Amino acid sequence: METSDAKRLLILKILSEEDQPLSSQVIKERLQERGTSLSERTVRFHMLALDKAGLTEYKEKKGRYLTADGYKEVARNQVYDRVGFLSSRIDELSYQMNFNWKKRSGTVLVNVSLVPLENSSVVYHLMAPIFESGLTMGQKVAVFRPGEKVGDVEIPEGYFGMGTVCSITLNGVYLRCGIPVTSVFGGLLEVSGSRPDRFSAIINYNGTSLDPLEIFISSGMTDCRKAAEAGHGFIGASFREIPASSLDQVSDIHQQLIEMGLGGILKMGYSGHSLLEIPVADGRIGFITAGGLNSVAALAESGISVRSRALSGLIEYKKLIPYTDLYEVLRHIHA
Amino acid sequence: METSDAKRLLILKILSEEDQPLSSQVIKERLQERGTSLSERTVRFHMLALDKAGLTEYKEKKGRYLTADGYKEVARNQVYDRVGFLSSRIDELSYQMNFNWKKRSGTVLVNVSLVPLENSSVVYHLMAPIFESGLTMGQKVAVFRPGEKVGDVEIPEGYFGMGTVCSITLNGVYLRCGIPVTSVFGGLLEVSGSRPDRFSAIINYNGTSLDPLEIFISSGMTDCRKAAEAGHGFIGASFREIPASSLDQVSDIHQQLIEMGLGGILKMGYSGHSLLEIPVADGRIGFITAGGLNSVAALAESGISVRSRALSGLIEYKKLIPYTDLYEVLRHIHA
Repeated sequence: METSDAKRLLILKILSEEDQPLSSQVIKERLQERGTSLSERTVRFHMLALDKAGLTEYKEKKGRYLTADGYKEVARNQVYDRVGFLSSRIDELSYQMNFNWKKRSGTVLVNVSLVPLENSSVVYHLMAPIFESGLTMGQKVAVFRPGEKVGDVEIPEGYFGMGTVCSITLNGVYLRCGIPVTSVFGGLLEVSGSRPDRFSAIINYNGTSLDPLEIFISSGMTDCRKAAEAGHGFIGASFREIPASSLDQVSDIHQQLIEMGLGGILKMGYSGHSLLEIPVADGRIGFITAGGLNSVAALAESGISVRSRALSGLIEYKKLIPYTDLYEVLRHIHA
Repeated sequence: METSDAKRLLILKILSEEDQPLSSQVIKERLQERGTSLSERTVRFHMLALDKAGLTEYKEKKGRYLTADGYKEVARNQVYDRVGFLSSRIDELSYQMNFNWKKRSGTVLVNVSLVPLENSSVVYHLMAPIFESGLTMGQKVAVFRPGEKVGDVEIPEGYFGMGTVCSITLNGVYLRCGIPVTSVFGGLLEVSGSRPDRFSAIINYNGTSLDPLEIFISSGMTDCRKAAEAGHGFIGASFREIPASSLDQVSDIHQQLIEMGLGGILKMGYSGHSLLEIPVADGRIGFITAGGLNSVAALAESGISVRSRALSGLIEYKKLIPYTDLYEVLRHIHA
């Protein structure tokens, strides 16, 4: 069974929870209670497919019940629901965001970092050089006050929320133009002479439940300040791929995105050619984006205790401010 | 081309480095210089295979040269040589170690952690509870003095090296008995009521160049002290699989390993059944081992600045001491 088949999985979950044989009629009602309206005929159609896959069986006069394999299928999906690999979250959120780059409106994806209010006076001076160097995603930020909620993060008392644009926003923009972007891995990128040089650590998105950049920052592996100020250091970056034929469109749109403060591509490869030694299949082009959290990494590198949550949620593009306004906004954050 | 085909890859590397067509005779000599003795006939056999794969081509009177695909193949392998996914390192080191559990001799795999000498007096008291709780790998350690070298780590002045047995040692022991162990992922395991409860984070070994447990510790995600002392907390653990038919042998040997201070399995599953919600294929059995670095995590959790390198190298089993001797040994470490 395809895990993408959410309806069939839901039927399996219902059977697993009730733990007794159910008729198609009852299953139909349970589905309805959970907001999924299907005709009895459609339910029967799905049940037959599940029977065929060996996940359910029919008991005369009683209805369908789960087989051992059916229980396994439910269990398998439960752990991935809970632990969840990052690649699923990336796809899910790219699909949910709805920024329209032509109208400059709609939602973009943000990371949220909790910064102690007592540090607010130094934040601008630490973050600005990273934005100036272009070694982070875009030129815009959002500030959230204590008590505000962004996605699944609520800003606690004593902190403010620093929202940075997540580079997955690019995937969302391109997806809405019909260009599928594959996020391959998050890596620690060595910058030399102010240019991307090579990856020194790699974590594939489809094999981790933790955001690689969050980890690099909290482990103290980044050195974004030195990368921005001295031209040599380690920053968070992401390796992605697009179909080679979409290159012109991707470049054109990126040019527009830069103008609206949402540029993030550091380096672009050639069709089928490896990029910074990372191999790319024929007909594909690799590109490297700067991590949206790199500006916040500068805070952690300076000893400020920051907790970041990558891919926190969606906010309206209009709520973003230029990073250059940060100084003024943070001056009044206590008020 | 199979990447396991090391000889063919070496030929490609030689051609790439010399950057000119080479005859089979010259390639044979270059191989010999690097310690690989092949007959000219065997070299020609490999060259024909490389031609066929489109990685090399023959130029009349000049010899073989690399095609564009050949260069790509070399590049692809170079980045993985350098960044290296953990699964390769696990396999490599499991193969290199040669501990014979019947004779209790040979080498085992250790992690090495650098601990400031000034903290040596508290180390025993912090680590002992983790060993007592059984939430780490085995009951033995090694202590290295400043200047000593273990694998690729040299202990700097001002530090001592704390060697802990790496749980990959189990893979090595089983491999020598003909039992193939697949290391699936490193995870953060929630312990409740002193028992493994569920995984709250997962990083697959075949998609990361960093050791997951090293990361969990340096990011401050572990809570081994609370897990050991209060029965609830988060520890580093590893999920592995074996063929179901090897269960009895694996259990018997593990019983022996426990007696020699090398036990590490926390929980064992049933054939084809998921274990702590992690699915296992039919004919396979999952098991969970405690991370060898969990005892050292207790130091980091107490604010001691420790740098750990998992899978550092091999040492003789005979050099290990019971953890209960640590107090005495560390009392004299300055001497």
